Amino acid sequence: MKEYTKISNAVIRRMPRYRRYLKDLQQKGVNKISSREFSRLIGYTASQIRQDFNNFGGFGQQGYGYNVAALHNEISTILGLDKEYKMVVVGAGNLGQAIINYTHYYKSGFVVSGIFELNPRLIGIKINDIEILDYEYLETYIKEHKIDIGIICTNKDNAQEVADRLSAAGVKGIWNFAPVDIVVPESVALENMHLSDSLHSLAYHINKTK
Amino acid sequence: MKEYTKISNAVIRRMPRYRRYLKDLQQKGVNKISSREFSRLIGYTASQIRQDFNNFGGFGQQGYGYNVAALHNEISTILGLDKEYKMVVVGAGNLGQAIINYTHYYKSGFVVSGIFELNPRLIGIKINDIEILDYEYLETYIKEHKIDIGIICTNKDNAQEVADRLSAAGVKGIWNFAPVDIVVPESVALENMHLSDSLHSLAYHINKTK
Repeated sequence: MKEYTKISNAVIRRMPRYRRYLKDLQQKGVNKISSREFSRLIGYTASQIRQDFNNFGGFGQQGYGYNVAALHNEISTILGLDKEYKMVVVGAGNLGQAIINYTHYYKSGFVVSGIFELNPRLIGIKINDIEILDYEYLETYIKEHKIDIGIICTNKDNAQEVADRLSAAGVKGIWNFAPVDIVVPESVALENMHLSDSLHSLAYHINKTK
Repeated sequence: MKEYTKISNAVIRRMPRYRRYLKDLQQKGVNKISSREFSRLIGYTASQIRQDFNNFGGFGQQGYGYNVAALHNEISTILGLDKEYKMVVVGAGNLGQAIINYTHYYKSGFVVSGIFELNPRLIGIKINDIEILDYEYLETYIKEHKIDIGIICTNKDNAQEVADRLSAAGVKGIWNFAPVDIVVPESVALENMHLSDSLHSLAYHINKTK
């Protein structure tokens, strides 16, 4: 992977969105697009788009526009989507099962390899052909299977302990769905998905726009 | 509901998070907290916290700190969480079922009342005792049951059409899980949950921190 340095978090946040639009354009048979056309589509200013892409050495040619396929591939590489990621899910309740089904359905380079649960009633059950294992074996499993990502789908009271164990066992990233903010070592990447926060923002805006 | 005007989106985004921390403090038996202590806990600066709360008329007393319970209740009211919201889910595939289970488990003022699906094989099946209905009856159902929120769990190609039909039928807000950006009328509130965008950001950070 090429080295891209000093890219702000805000730019990184926009990258998956750029990629989504480019994939869509590709599927529609569009080969090239100007930053102005892309701006109309995605809703960022053309200068924002040019600036963002310049972070990665730029992809366009003056007066020609961007090559959609090349740009899509480059952003995929930047994001690290040309690799495969092995994941474990901790917490096989409703939310955990949902995420397992979702990533299964989503069919990408992100593969759920192990599922762990504290509740003995769930241990041994299979979800998408993956057996739910005892939480006790989490560390051993992560090391043996070289797991990259731990997905936390427990309740909020267990989330930090799970994060600590995942981090100590060597995962490189944590995707947290528990409705709590967790702390991880600097060497571990963290993404939070706070569903309830999003629903509460929606409630606010509903009352405001009424 | 009191009227609070000109509150920026950034402040609104932080409100559910404030509320989460306050609920947690309440459960731990903490009655009051200074903006400095709260700052250490939540990771925003004390001045940011004071500024945010001043948007709503402030809740604290100089030299005393904030009353945790009162602040929690006030933020809940501001967000509109003292009401009940009736919701429909469109798309009863893996992701749809996940969201239905999640909101069911989550037990709050957000209640899934109807589930709609295009796939005839799923129509008639029950999820948490709610029968999956034919997408054809969406508008009638929304009007009859005074539905507040439409949750889109379809694939990306159907998402905009679903949003148009939900909006025309009179929902006040849309919670979109389809991996695409949809457009809604100004009178309809919109919250996007782009799971794949979050996972892709995580992939980037994993490669960067390696």
